[in-house]
Amino acid sequence: MSKALPKRSEDYSGWYNELVKKADLAENSAVRGCMVIKPYGYAIWEKMQQTLDKMFKETGHVNAYFPLFVPKSLFEAEEQNAEGFAKECALVTHYRLKADPDRKGKLIVDPDAKLEEELVVRPTSEAIIWSTYKNWIQSYRDLPLLINQWANVVRWEMRTRLFLRTAEFLWQEGHTAHSTAQEAIQETEKMLGVYAEFAENFLALPVIKGIKTANERFAGALDTYCIEALMQDGKALQAGTSHFLGQNFAKAFDVKFTNKEGALDYVWGTSWGVSTRLMGALIMAHSDDNGLVLPPKLAPHQVVIIPIVFGDDNSALFEKCDEIKKTLEKAGISVKLDARDTHKPGWKFAEYELKGVPVRLALGNRDLASNQIELARRDTLTKEMVPLEGLAERLLALMDEIQTNIYKKADDFKTKQTLKVDDYETFKKTLDENPGFILAHWDGTPETEEKIKNETKATIRCIPLDAPEENGFCMVTGKPSNKRVVFARAY
Amino acid sequence: MSKALPKRSEDYSGWYNELVKKADLAENSAVRGCMVIKPYGYAIWEKMQQTLDKMFKETGHVNAYFPLFVPKSLFEAEEQNAEGFAKECALVTHYRLKADPDRKGKLIVDPDAKLEEELVVRPTSEAIIWSTYKNWIQSYRDLPLLINQWANVVRWEMRTRLFLRTAEFLWQEGHTAHSTAQEAIQETEKMLGVYAEFAENFLALPVIKGIKTANERFAGALDTYCIEALMQDGKALQAGTSHFLGQNFAKAFDVKFTNKEGALDYVWGTSWGVSTRLMGALIMAHSDDNGLVLPPKLAPHQVVIIPIVFGDDNSALFEKCDEIKKTLEKAGISVKLDARDTHKPGWKFAEYELKGVPVRLALGNRDLASNQIELARRDTLTKEMVPLEGLAERLLALMDEIQTNIYKKADDFKTKQTLKVDDYETFKKTLDENPGFILAHWDGTPETEEKIKNETKATIRCIPLDAPEENGFCMVTGKPSNKRVVFARAY
Repeated sequence: MSKALPKRSEDYSGWYNELVKKADLAENSAVRGCMVIKPYGYAIWEKMQQTLDKMFKETGHVNAYFPLFVPKSLFEAEEQNAEGFAKECALVTHYRLKADPDRKGKLIVDPDAKLEEELVVRPTSEAIIWSTYKNWIQSYRDLPLLINQWANVVRWEMRTRLFLRTAEFLWQEGHTAHSTAQEAIQETEKMLGVYAEFAENFLALPVIKGIKTANERFAGALDTYCIEALMQDGKALQAGTSHFLGQNFAKAFDVKFTNKEGALDYVWGTSWGVSTRLMGALIMAHSDDNGLVLPPKLAPHQVVIIPIVFGDDNSALFEKCDEIKKTLEKAGISVKLDARDTHKPGWKFAEYELKGVPVRLALGNRDLASNQIELARRDTLTKEMVPLEGLAERLLALMDEIQTNIYKKADDFKTKQTLKVDDYETFKKTLDENPGFILAHWDGTPETEEKIKNETKATIRCIPLDAPEENGFCMVTGKPSNKRVVFARAY
Repeated sequence: MSKALPKRSEDYSGWYNELVKKADLAENSAVRGCMVIKPYGYAIWEKMQQTLDKMFKETGHVNAYFPLFVPKSLFEAEEQNAEGFAKECALVTHYRLKADPDRKGKLIVDPDAKLEEELVVRPTSEAIIWSTYKNWIQSYRDLPLLINQWANVVRWEMRTRLFLRTAEFLWQEGHTAHSTAQEAIQETEKMLGVYAEFAENFLALPVIKGIKTANERFAGALDTYCIEALMQDGKALQAGTSHFLGQNFAKAFDVKFTNKEGALDYVWGTSWGVSTRLMGALIMAHSDDNGLVLPPKLAPHQVVIIPIVFGDDNSALFEKCDEIKKTLEKAGISVKLDARDTHKPGWKFAEYELKGVPVRLALGNRDLASNQIELARRDTLTKEMVPLEGLAERLLALMDEIQTNIYKKADDFKTKQTLKVDDYETFKKTLDENPGFILAHWDGTPETEEKIKNETKATIRCIPLDAPEENGFCMVTGKPSNKRVVFARAY
């Protein structure tokens, strides 16, 4: 093990960056802003994918795959969307390399292989998908169309950070088409619910469900719903969005259907997505100065077994470890047995602590004799001796307990750091000294929102769906307001 | 249902193209050469993915993700590989669009946003991955490195065909690093074995395992192993490749390791991949003039239940269909119940025949009374009345039987169409009149291979791994040869 992580209290940002690298989750690549997702990080992402995919299918969605490239003329068809993404598009302009006449063994772009129309590497797929839906939808019988895609997308971000903001990232994007506005809105809300459920039950992350202000809306949407989570430094992180697109894309791509009454109408749309950004949320929400803390439901290994070898003959010990592994796996627990002789137990303890394995079991020859094993919990950093008998049942129950405990810790933090503020001075002071979700009154204008953002770097994260009616006055302009919105500085 | 498919005997190519579209597998997109994989096609691909992924993990591999883009300077580092792919590279040259000053609402590539170094959209990932491995490998303890990636790749093909040859396709690419040549060769052969097992047990497709000639080798490999399958028109299809890379990429990217003796050496590499091309193989190998024929192990729905409604009250019928569905699902069979009232049973029969669902169950009110159900097999186009009692057990056994039967049919065809030919005239005649795998003697030179290719369009598909020693004479030059190789015209 190389030197320890920076402490969260001293350098939260450095702590995060180092943790992502040291725990073998991801690293920067040779391509500006693009990351390599390493096997351990990818194994967590795979668990997220599998879980979400199952939830999408249970809610009636199917997967498909649409092209990586969007011809420029299609890309620009929905003007708001095009304008929103134009500044961060990677563009394919040529389709061939040729030998460089001046440098042996080197290649140059062949100027003769210029595309007639440039291709946008998809930053999101509404354009290419709605241009396809046009041919798939004629009648109300073809609706609803409930399709999801797992894909890579590219947004040319200037300032990037592993998982949180990268030029290329992995995500899923749902794109649905409906015959009524009401049904499309229901779908938008349903998928927001799926995201919230996933965040809470799997990521162990409490979220606020809400609606974005016009300023923060997805380009081309009528409404953007979101889930917002709170990180340990008091900054918010948008963990998923679900958009009600109205008929914008249907109009841009001329997607009409014959309704039950025989009349032609434009189709109503939604889109919704979560990305590898969730990896960043998972890491930042739960981990500590010793490393990752993973909720058991997403941990690639829920339990690691480490034999404490001593002397020459450890064959009985190894055999017992093997037997324990098999018993636990049979009970449905994912187990890694690290019997390598190239590393000492102490090194392994630190390694799996860093990697956030929820439970560590350590077995020595003396324990073997007394039919006990040392059980250490990653979330509480506590350890105890437990009997080998009934270990699987104990661990199954413990997985639930740990999952619940990690959620509770995050939820307590969120509750503690969700503060009602009524005047702008306190607002600014709170942001600097005790950051979190700030519930404040706002006059509802983009101008005030913008002013607050420019002066404090805080944005309106959302208007919570469950915000109670409460008469008050905008903390900046003093104009009347009828509910509080959520402000925070955000990732 | 629109009009019938072309017949295979009259227009094999037209039959394939129409089948892919009519069975809702894929379609051409607005992007030249790129396809949309539709939900039904994608569901089959997902089954392939899940199966292969499991097989890769069982053989010790883990997944990771590397960038979509490869900087040109990295791409050209391994010269053979770069030369091999240079002519079909999509190139990203700019990273921003801006408003077109001449056309309101339109966008143009911003000339001020030109990249200093162009990015190649990966046609394969050896370059970006080996440039990363350099930092991951120091010692023999870091080896072997056994990594797989599921990704999209782009090769700018001039003539494209759905699934068989598309500009963008989906695939997996394994990239492994080893401390000895022998271990790398073992890995290359092991993964070829995994592919062959997958083809035979899941795709129901018998294959020849072999080694490519130097002409047909992957650019940058020392040896390319392959599996070759035979389509119903007697053309071969390369269904998977596994490459022994020697130290080529290690040298190009300076990837060295300290061996057990403390000496520095270059790492040995392999790479191996299969793609959405397998969809083409699956379709072309088994389907008939009525539509798709899917092996049960890859069918999205193994059984479809169609209620034959009659009169006004079909509630008991629907209830029974539901009950059957649940019983079958409990037994592990995937079932679709199509109780839509918008389509007639006859339409549904044709639809699921076209879509290759292995078994169709049709239940009418009279059957209900006699506790029987009509069972139709897609592979044999036979039907019979069977008792409802014991239906799940019968169907479970039938799935195996159908899987075996589809394989046997393809295997019989392959056996029948694998012909030994000893003279060039017969060779040419056979290619035209009775095509298939032709086993012939060849003098081992690239010149003769090239001549045969130019004159007949047949290529050496592979030198079979199990080819017996047999003295003979090259059918073209009369020079001595000690084994037969496999020739065919190919996709």
